Amino acid sequence: MVGADSKPVIGIIGTGAIGGFYGLMLARAGFDVHFLLRSEFSAVAERGLQVDSAVHGTLTLNPVQAYAKAEDMPACDWLLVGAKTTSSAGLAPAIIAAARPGAKVLVLQNGLDVEDSLREWLPDSLHLLGGLCLICVHREGPGHITHQALGAVNVGYHSGPAMGDAARMALVEEGASLFRAAGIDSQAMANLQQARWQKLVWNIPYNGLSVLLGAGTTPLMADADSRALIQALMAEVVQGAKACGHDMPPAYAEYLFTMTEKMPDYWPSMYHDFLHKRPLELEAIYARPLAAAKAAGCELPRIEALYRTLGFIDRRNT
Amino acid sequence: MVGADSKPVIGIIGTGAIGGFYGLMLARAGFDVHFLLRSEFSAVAERGLQVDSAVHGTLTLNPVQAYAKAEDMPACDWLLVGAKTTSSAGLAPAIIAAARPGAKVLVLQNGLDVEDSLREWLPDSLHLLGGLCLICVHREGPGHITHQALGAVNVGYHSGPAMGDAARMALVEEGASLFRAAGIDSQAMANLQQARWQKLVWNIPYNGLSVLLGAGTTPLMADADSRALIQALMAEVVQGAKACGHDMPPAYAEYLFTMTEKMPDYWPSMYHDFLHKRPLELEAIYARPLAAAKAAGCELPRIEALYRTLGFIDRRNT
Repeated sequence: MVGADSKPVIGIIGTGAIGGFYGLMLARAGFDVHFLLRSEFSAVAERGLQVDSAVHGTLTLNPVQAYAKAEDMPACDWLLVGAKTTSSAGLAPAIIAAARPGAKVLVLQNGLDVEDSLREWLPDSLHLLGGLCLICVHREGPGHITHQALGAVNVGYHSGPAMGDAARMALVEEGASLFRAAGIDSQAMANLQQARWQKLVWNIPYNGLSVLLGAGTTPLMADADSRALIQALMAEVVQGAKACGHDMPPAYAEYLFTMTEKMPDYWPSMYHDFLHKRPLELEAIYARPLAAAKAAGCELPRIEALYRTLGFIDRRNT
Repeated sequence: MVGADSKPVIGIIGTGAIGGFYGLMLARAGFDVHFLLRSEFSAVAERGLQVDSAVHGTLTLNPVQAYAKAEDMPACDWLLVGAKTTSSAGLAPAIIAAARPGAKVLVLQNGLDVEDSLREWLPDSLHLLGGLCLICVHREGPGHITHQALGAVNVGYHSGPAMGDAARMALVEEGASLFRAAGIDSQAMANLQQARWQKLVWNIPYNGLSVLLGAGTTPLMADADSRALIQALMAEVVQGAKACGHDMPPAYAEYLFTMTEKMPDYWPSMYHDFLHKRPLELEAIYARPLAAAKAAGCELPRIEALYRTLGFIDRRNT
């Protein structure tokens, strides 16, 4: 159905901040993008999507190819999964319904082993890839997204019918080129697990501390104690990654730390989840990295302490 | 002036929850007790002191020998210091003004090295002792104290003119006997520093977590994550004490953990300080134990992480 030259059909599974932002960018770049929504379906079908971006200005998409049911979507070549890790198992039926045979499923979620949780529910014929989004974006209201800074998506192959590194990297490049065609930085990553650990160097300190201390990145980067704690947590992630066989690039933690100092005040996604009394993504961002490091003989005591406090908070909050 | 048989004159420096409770108990037992107050002087001089105790019922003391200035107090044989560690330096002039020559100064504060902070401001002629209060008590309002449970005070000698262990232990016994005469459990401790570390096994987890998680002891003891974190923090205190040469009694952490499970829901003093926007006692309860352990080559990463979060919170709060 889809020729070599024609643009792929893209489905967005979970049109929150991440799915909405990248879907809108791809649609505005001329891709055929279809959005699956739940509670916000009527609002987006009526009024479209809007991104207020500090980088790109105000961007709108109206009309939106919006769907309340995956069964109504056309067969998609690429499916971008932007929903929370806390609902991964429930996503599989929607992905299967919207995927054409041999489709590529790209999981735009944070945390470790998030593809594994999904893989067991998907047929072997589907390619599964992971995307690490380095972006400051949050949902403002139904179909309304604020984009504060950054935007890169780094893509890696997880599992599926691609045989051999060359075939896998070709698919990864194909995914990265979609984003680049939409003006978004995107790198092909040879090692997805390594890329996920790299992203955790940021997520583990900032997501948790934003909830625990009720603070965005600016106050966290302005206080001597929280700075020292962030650096110690980052060092533990690097240590855990190393124990699991993933050496971080040189001075990678320092790079993220300095980058965060230059960012506008940003409230990570976990804070928004907390604020809206949604379950926190503790399993993917904390429990699995802790378990992986422990299995490799590496204790991460500060991360474990942070994880325990967040477990308490999460249980009280939801 | 004071004969061997006559009862000692007791001064209370800082009539908050601790000073007020023990002072009232000693006065009701027939001791000659004088209370130094600041902002609550008029209220207590007019209406007296009241302790609503779950153990002893409602206890009152009226009239109270109350003073707004230490210079107006009679020369005291024993001075009980119940003020916060955050104001220790400023207490010395009041202690000196109220102390008769050779008086015993008993510091009823939490944390490590709290006597050291005071010692440098006191003349060599004064005995300095430390008291560890195992009690659930808080200030309800001016001159009004709620006592929920427990009450023991364990006493040890810090420094002063007493020569030799026998002379020191005689003074420690004298202090302990004051409390016992007022119906309060009190043990003489041969090693004050060891006793202070023992108390930290409780204070370090519960004080900090009550502020960080906004929870009293009952919810903290009901949640699997906070229980695991409390146990891990307690284990680190025991480890730090050991590194500093103080072996805790066998299963001491388990004893405190189980004791706390049986307590009524208790909000530690640090939570009340936080709530009333007073500075938190982070120096005495966290920074000094961490520094002492570190100097002995022992890292306490979970305690350090907790301390960092509290530093951030304290700076935002006051």
